Amino acid sequence: MFVVAVVGGTGHLGAAIGRRLALAGYQVIVGSRDADRAREAAARLSDGLSVPIRGAANPDAAREASIVVVAVPWASQAQILTDIRSAVVGKIVVDTTVPLVPPKVMRVQLPPEGSAAQTAQKLLGDGVKVVSAFHNVAAHKLATDQEVDCDVLVFGDDKDARAQVIELVKACRLRGLHAGSLANSAAAEAFTSLLIFINRQYSVDGAGIRITGAINCDLGRPA
Amino acid sequence: MFVVAVVGGTGHLGAAIGRRLALAGYQVIVGSRDADRAREAAARLSDGLSVPIRGAANPDAAREASIVVVAVPWASQAQILTDIRSAVVGKIVVDTTVPLVPPKVMRVQLPPEGSAAQTAQKLLGDGVKVVSAFHNVAAHKLATDQEVDCDVLVFGDDKDARAQVIELVKACRLRGLHAGSLANSAAAEAFTSLLIFINRQYSVDGAGIRITGAINCDLGRPA
Repeated sequence: MFVVAVVGGTGHLGAAIGRRLALAGYQVIVGSRDADRAREAAARLSDGLSVPIRGAANPDAAREASIVVVAVPWASQAQILTDIRSAVVGKIVVDTTVPLVPPKVMRVQLPPEGSAAQTAQKLLGDGVKVVSAFHNVAAHKLATDQEVDCDVLVFGDDKDARAQVIELVKACRLRGLHAGSLANSAAAEAFTSLLIFINRQYSVDGAGIRITGAINCDLGRPA
Repeated sequence: MFVVAVVGGTGHLGAAIGRRLALAGYQVIVGSRDADRAREAAARLSDGLSVPIRGAANPDAAREASIVVVAVPWASQAQILTDIRSAVVGKIVVDTTVPLVPPKVMRVQLPPEGSAAQTAQKLLGDGVKVVSAFHNVAAHKLATDQEVDCDVLVFGDDKDARAQVIELVKACRLRGLHAGSLANSAAAEAFTSLLIFINRQYSVDGAGIRITGAINCDLGRPA
């Protein structure tokens, strides 16, 4: 299995993705702005793993990996993508950014580019294949060993890159679905504000989303 | 039960909503630009009903109703809202418009206002309570007597108006959920392009959407 970096891997979502990928057999490096914090998180996340997760500064983590997952807050996206830019040329970057603008995180506020995914593509340039995913999964649920009742919608302008990311989603024991071009990422990103609203309105502990209809796709299980 | 008008009620979605509301006991008037077409559709949709659905020109239908559902294509939204504007002052308008821009209907293309719902509110002015709903339901499924496996997300800046629309959704035998302000309508509107993409990608006959998590709300059944 190849190496996956999780930039922002000390955050809730990044840590959960890193742990699930490692459990599925991927070599995982979690990145942070601070290399020491990354190594501490890696040690904590490696409990019970035969091949431990490593930790490194974000650009170093990105440099060593074939696929780079970015799991950082919207307010940090531009800076962190700039930091890793030279390290991800020619690679797939899986952007998970949701454009939540505090304090009104329950209100959809999409960026001028249309979506955070398109913002990422613009920042990283054409030499990088940006795919976006994991927008609607509750991080605290993904951090457990339980099944998470949520589909992962996968967006990207390159179908093969999307398919590779869908494999990563499967490795995280989630159903990943092709959901169209990067422009469509706006739908899933906007949906997160709405799920936060529903959590509050109906006292739900992490509402998710399922696509209904007889979808003929293999849910898959980690190898 | 009060009178509900369905402007654009000769279209697939409008006809299906009108029929389900009439079956639940509402007095329904379907509107069309052409009064004769509206009356023909009304007759066709009234099969087996004790109180038949009536038909009228859009502005006349809107004038007689307490709540006005608008189910028209994106390209016609501005014209038709202008036509009914004076007839809906002080009322709730349920806008179902999805900003699909042919030929790329599988690509999210939100309007400058952020959503079709906000476009409607701007056109109708502050004297009208715009609520948006029914974006993700496959019209051909709603046209049957079957259960439709899809939630209806209901958006609006006035919570009481949203609650009234949720009652209409229940009457259509669907689960309606408070999903926040009118700005949030962007999420559900954008989602429709994505569902069309998924229908094509996975050969699904009308994919829908379900919010997961233990949502404590009464699905409701028509009285």
